[in-house]
Amino acid sequence: MQVSQHRLRRDIEANAEYGGLAVDEGNGRTVLAGTEADRQAREYFCERLRDAGLSVHVDAVGNVVGRWDPESADSDAAPVAAGSHLDSVPEGGIFDGPLGVYAALESVRAMQDAGVEPVRPVEVVNLTEEEGQRFGGGLLGSAVAAGDTTVDEALALEDGEGISLGEALEDIGFRGEGAVDASEWDAWLELHIEQSERLEDADVPAGVVTTITGLTRCEVEFIGEANHAGSTLMGDRSDALAAASEFVLDVEAIANDVVASDSETAVATVGKLDVGPNAPNVISGRTELTIDIRDVERDSVETIVDHARTSLDLIASERDVETTFERPWGREPVPMSDRCRDAMHAAGDEAGIETMDLHSGAAHDTMNIASVTDAGLLFAPSRGGISHNPLEWTDWEDCAAAADVLAGALADLATE
Amino acid sequence: MQVSQHRLRRDIEANAEYGGLAVDEGNGRTVLAGTEADRQAREYFCERLRDAGLSVHVDAVGNVVGRWDPESADSDAAPVAAGSHLDSVPEGGIFDGPLGVYAALESVRAMQDAGVEPVRPVEVVNLTEEEGQRFGGGLLGSAVAAGDTTVDEALALEDGEGISLGEALEDIGFRGEGAVDASEWDAWLELHIEQSERLEDADVPAGVVTTITGLTRCEVEFIGEANHAGSTLMGDRSDALAAASEFVLDVEAIANDVVASDSETAVATVGKLDVGPNAPNVISGRTELTIDIRDVERDSVETIVDHARTSLDLIASERDVETTFERPWGREPVPMSDRCRDAMHAAGDEAGIETMDLHSGAAHDTMNIASVTDAGLLFAPSRGGISHNPLEWTDWEDCAAAADVLAGALADLATE
Repeated sequence: MQVSQHRLRRDIEANAEYGGLAVDEGNGRTVLAGTEADRQAREYFCERLRDAGLSVHVDAVGNVVGRWDPESADSDAAPVAAGSHLDSVPEGGIFDGPLGVYAALESVRAMQDAGVEPVRPVEVVNLTEEEGQRFGGGLLGSAVAAGDTTVDEALALEDGEGISLGEALEDIGFRGEGAVDASEWDAWLELHIEQSERLEDADVPAGVVTTITGLTRCEVEFIGEANHAGSTLMGDRSDALAAASEFVLDVEAIANDVVASDSETAVATVGKLDVGPNAPNVISGRTELTIDIRDVERDSVETIVDHARTSLDLIASERDVETTFERPWGREPVPMSDRCRDAMHAAGDEAGIETMDLHSGAAHDTMNIASVTDAGLLFAPSRGGISHNPLEWTDWEDCAAAADVLAGALADLATE
Repeated sequence: MQVSQHRLRRDIEANAEYGGLAVDEGNGRTVLAGTEADRQAREYFCERLRDAGLSVHVDAVGNVVGRWDPESADSDAAPVAAGSHLDSVPEGGIFDGPLGVYAALESVRAMQDAGVEPVRPVEVVNLTEEEGQRFGGGLLGSAVAAGDTTVDEALALEDGEGISLGEALEDIGFRGEGAVDASEWDAWLELHIEQSERLEDADVPAGVVTTITGLTRCEVEFIGEANHAGSTLMGDRSDALAAASEFVLDVEAIANDVVASDSETAVATVGKLDVGPNAPNVISGRTELTIDIRDVERDSVETIVDHARTSLDLIASERDVETTFERPWGREPVPMSDRCRDAMHAAGDEAGIETMDLHSGAAHDTMNIASVTDAGLLFAPSRGGISHNPLEWTDWEDCAAAADVLAGALADLATE
């Protein structure tokens, strides 16, 4: 059994036209949930599903499910499902999401061509608003499918202009009935681009995710005294930016310590920092920053948070600034199912395609689905790790190789 | 001879009405050059000048000069002059500028009341656009008076809406003839609020400025690699914000070293820092900052710049980031004239008002005027050092005490 690189590429390229952008370099698209571009992408997808003989169901939050129910299958058996999302960030790339959706469809077509006889139905899925760029939050369709968010909560979400998801889906003709229930799936697989460089560096076309990292966000504020940069002597200052700078370096050092001693996958990032009043001739009276802390090990996230708080207290007392520390949200690490991982490794071996284990530092819909059924996440290489950008790229050979692993694993799970 | 606290207060309070703001606490005003508020403030000032028997001249850039030419004086002798500015920053305070203008006028009235017989004319001056808030740059009227900027250059300056200073002055009826020539003054004195806390801390009502600090601005850029905060391992990062944070601390340490070893007045401040893309889950790919370096000693400014560049090169090589360093402008330290300083100390002694020496970390019109004649700068205490803010405050007793020193020094210089 082998997927058709030609068919897969044709679908991804056709999908790239919807919301497509004229860019100097690369291939850009903007597909926000419930927009005209989303409607076009969804309609093309439904057409491709029907062409392959799948029945199409749209749920109340716009999740689209194409179901292959071959004669060999017990139609009452729990299906195996695969998919991803068709929406994008503004000015995003053409692989983030669509690769997983169309590789799932191509897997079904490859099984059909090869005469695979599943004992379970196979479902090909497009999940709504993964990127969270219009209605906020992200991973929305999967949150509903996993029962974390109700249909009513999801439909009531509003965009910046006060249009609800319900209205937007109605407008584009994709507000259906009921809700996809991921707990009814026997297993779920998602193929996604890696969005970092580990597969490219290792020259391996398929990465089997072991765990999606836990994540904590902390919000830290430093309050000093805004004063004239010329008339306030060095010894009389309470400089919020200098205090924050010390903290940024402490956070980095703490994460490096954890990497060296406990868990090499731990990361901590201060990516957002806002200085007030942010004038060249005024000592900062207030600086705010956000820390993003992730690891596959819950303990190392907690260690970094604890040490960061200790560092903050020390800075506050040594520099005579006031500080606040909040931890508005976090999520636990999500390990992937052994059954799904094994199926993907075995499919790679079967097809002569090298696979490697890696973790995912980014969130994906699979994170939600893993809470209600066996779930697996597969990565294809990203050139230079670039994503959310028209320069996002995965070679077509790599797309096809990763799709072969996906198809093999789906066939394996569906014939169990 | 003694100034009238009552008259001084009445003038400053009356002036505070023009552009006055309704604020919860304090006394705010917004008086930008060439606006209706500026017209009102200027007209009241001219009226007060004439009430005191001074002749009024307005020059081409709106500088207003009230001239007292008593019978005792040789009207061909070089005058002594004093003043400051009536414009403000947006939502500024009521003392920054007006104290110096009305204390100069009150000095003349006090001399008149006391029967002082100057041998030189005395001029009371309001300088245009000191704050640089509408037409940019700042210290504009004094730059023209000192010959650093031509009348035509000044009049051609435009505000954000394309209105020129010339048009704006025409509109409010304050575009006069010729240009005040500060080099024709025998001496110049300016009373200004301190805008820091040294006088308040020392409980001294009048500070005699020794030197206005030199100032250099440096603009520094760090270019790393913007990458996903979750999927980029600690060891694979090129984090522009972490590099910039290290530099912020280095700049602070370098300034502290210079303070400890060479010059206790040296200061270096990173007050403006902009992170790109400034998202919680993206490692910064580009961070820019500005350093403001000042001292009364030219050498210590240069030492700080040199050491900052060395630190930057080290950070660039150790952190694998690219950096740029620019030094778009600077100004040399400006020492105040001994003759003017001596006159102010002597006036304090005479009146039983304590004075102390201090430097000015902030720029003032006196900086420009000092390049063409003997100039002195006197500070009154600022409560909490607060300025450019409705909470800016100087007790009326302190205003009067500082004005007494000004009056005494002016009388001394004018009777020499």
